[in-house]
Amino acid sequence: MRDLMPEQARKKQYLEEVFRKEAESYGFEPLETPEVEDFALLAAKGGAGEAIKEEIYYFKDKSERELGLRFDLTVPLARVIASNPQLPKPFKRFQIGKVYRYDRPGAKRYREFTQADVDIIGSDSILADFECVSLAYNYLKDLQLPFSLRVANKKLLEEMALASGVKKEQLKECLRSLDKLDKIGAEGVAKELKEKKISDKILDIVKGNDLQKIEKIAKDKKGLEELKELLDYCEKAGISDLVKFDASLARGLEYYTGNVFEVAIPNAPSVGGGGRYDNLIQLYGGPPTPAVGISFGIDRLIDIFEGKFRAGKTQVMIIPMSESAGKEALAIAKELRGMGLKVENDLMQRSLGKNLEFAQKRGIPFVGILGEDELKAKELTLKELSTGKQTKVPFSKLEELKKRLGE
Amino acid sequence: MRDLMPEQARKKQYLEEVFRKEAESYGFEPLETPEVEDFALLAAKGGAGEAIKEEIYYFKDKSERELGLRFDLTVPLARVIASNPQLPKPFKRFQIGKVYRYDRPGAKRYREFTQADVDIIGSDSILADFECVSLAYNYLKDLQLPFSLRVANKKLLEEMALASGVKKEQLKECLRSLDKLDKIGAEGVAKELKEKKISDKILDIVKGNDLQKIEKIAKDKKGLEELKELLDYCEKAGISDLVKFDASLARGLEYYTGNVFEVAIPNAPSVGGGGRYDNLIQLYGGPPTPAVGISFGIDRLIDIFEGKFRAGKTQVMIIPMSESAGKEALAIAKELRGMGLKVENDLMQRSLGKNLEFAQKRGIPFVGILGEDELKAKELTLKELSTGKQTKVPFSKLEELKKRLGE
Repeated sequence: MRDLMPEQARKKQYLEEVFRKEAESYGFEPLETPEVEDFALLAAKGGAGEAIKEEIYYFKDKSERELGLRFDLTVPLARVIASNPQLPKPFKRFQIGKVYRYDRPGAKRYREFTQADVDIIGSDSILADFECVSLAYNYLKDLQLPFSLRVANKKLLEEMALASGVKKEQLKECLRSLDKLDKIGAEGVAKELKEKKISDKILDIVKGNDLQKIEKIAKDKKGLEELKELLDYCEKAGISDLVKFDASLARGLEYYTGNVFEVAIPNAPSVGGGGRYDNLIQLYGGPPTPAVGISFGIDRLIDIFEGKFRAGKTQVMIIPMSESAGKEALAIAKELRGMGLKVENDLMQRSLGKNLEFAQKRGIPFVGILGEDELKAKELTLKELSTGKQTKVPFSKLEELKKRLGE
Repeated sequence: MRDLMPEQARKKQYLEEVFRKEAESYGFEPLETPEVEDFALLAAKGGAGEAIKEEIYYFKDKSERELGLRFDLTVPLARVIASNPQLPKPFKRFQIGKVYRYDRPGAKRYREFTQADVDIIGSDSILADFECVSLAYNYLKDLQLPFSLRVANKKLLEEMALASGVKKEQLKECLRSLDKLDKIGAEGVAKELKEKKISDKILDIVKGNDLQKIEKIAKDKKGLEELKELLDYCEKAGISDLVKFDASLARGLEYYTGNVFEVAIPNAPSVGGGGRYDNLIQLYGGPPTPAVGISFGIDRLIDIFEGKFRAGKTQVMIIPMSESAGKEALAIAKELRGMGLKVENDLMQRSLGKNLEFAQKRGIPFVGILGEDELKAKELTLKELSTGKQTKVPFSKLEELKKRLGE
């Protein structure tokens, strides 16, 4: 867990705001759920049960109720959907919130981190899968990050495994090993498969990454069709330059049922991913309900995003040089704020020199100096700190400042 | 704890965004701290120690470290300030975040709720107190809520108590009882004071609420001067119509040291308050550091705010009536999103009737219908759902929609 000091916190605000705008542009609606959930609810996902206690923040409240901090935003969503069957479908929601995992903290792993999710509940159309991919594409473009989107299909991966000699009852374990390709490499996976007595021929198919070849060996074509439809939508929308089939993508979580997606950024850990999970809502007591979504790790984005953005930073500081100027400074600041400017007052009644030093440290680009001369002439001395340039702005023309300060 | 469904969640977003803009306009900077803190840190505030375990969410992690969910945003701020002495002063930060209290949930009390705080660290000037009051005033004006701001001074209240016969060692208990005035009334407080064997003459002074009379009886004038300076700034800024001295305001928390503020909204529980707390940073190991702040309860604001606001809601839904129209619908939606509009696609491939019903339920004001006729004529049929009015918009003039849909 970490503190985000102002520079980082501002970046987080920006990353969240761009996400929110993108989600709203597609008609996603906000939802907020508590961060504390019943332990039984958290334990249900993936059937991990009691074992999950080791991986989450688990505790009891004063009435001995078993609780936990949520580890994702999908489980609470499934709970809300299952208990609100009246919601019109598709229900498209976005949520930005903190989640908690009791990982051993690694280089880029935090125990508390912020996720930004969109999910579409109630549509089994591949159009919904495409909307998630398309939103992810737009979001990453907005941020001007170098990226590609890897897509695959869980059903197809299972078909490939079956076709290469994996037994049905070995599927789960086979996919678990395959999911470690990025971490332990093909040799590592082969070794694991051998230890589990599972055929490793699947590795050749995965490495080949040839959709046409795969088409020939898959008996059940359902997964293949879903994937091809998604790729077709991407092609027509002109975004297929950055959306690529990747046969090796297993997306770990066992609850995926169809197309899966993952964001790949060069030399960085994954910042997002998702897929279709048509069985989850049912697990939480709802009727069978198709669902698809994608999730971004805001903290990882904070670590790699270096782009410029219009921040909420102070634009000018008003520095009075006497007591009477102090009152005028408050009035001027008020007027400038009324124009939408971000204005700081001197709250320490310090000298000009100390105030200039403070403005420098804080990265405030302009100061407005107000001494006895300025009061008499009814004007403000505006100084740009980077150049030292000074100009006079009459009190009656303060609205000129708006342009000067870059609004 | 509660779920915020889309309508409520949108309101929360709005309340937070207005707060953030107001804070940024004064040069406050964002800070984010973890929601889980060391228990020892949480227990230090107010010297409650172990007893606080009953009032917060307390637990141990796998390595038996004692932790707790934060109960306010001030304690984490004090920790950050104490451990980052290099931060330029004043350090003005805002933070919007969730906090947790293990209250017995009452009508308008939540165990998980969101606070929005501004604090100014490092200035002992009453200008800083005024900035907090002024920001609160602007925020509530922005929201067009009926409100007044009650102000008082902790030192002055203590002086009044001493002057009315309360002994020094009884001060703490006396203020604790006084703080219950709103809840149990003057009679209740009088009874409590009698039980504690504390003089109840203070009640007459408080009821009188006459600053001139109080001026005469207070021996140490420090608190009085602080309060008068604050009221004077409010007068000069033209906001004294809604900022009133209230002798009875004790603001419970023992850590306040000077001026205190509270937001009063007719027929509603308090939605915010704050004050000066010059001793807190030191408690967390920092050097003696003056501090003042104000905090708003966003969840209570959600419950009472009924104002209108430009929400992030979908503006138009594009409904295709055939498969070929489906592809065009995706392209049109993409173009409209590029103009900044919020556009929903049909993800269910439903009939026109079903889609219209869905749009009605979701409160989407316009639909764009795309059938074979429209494809041939290269135009969209735009229908306003509230009036049933239909107009045609050529594909080449989609930018006209921007005005029509109210952007």
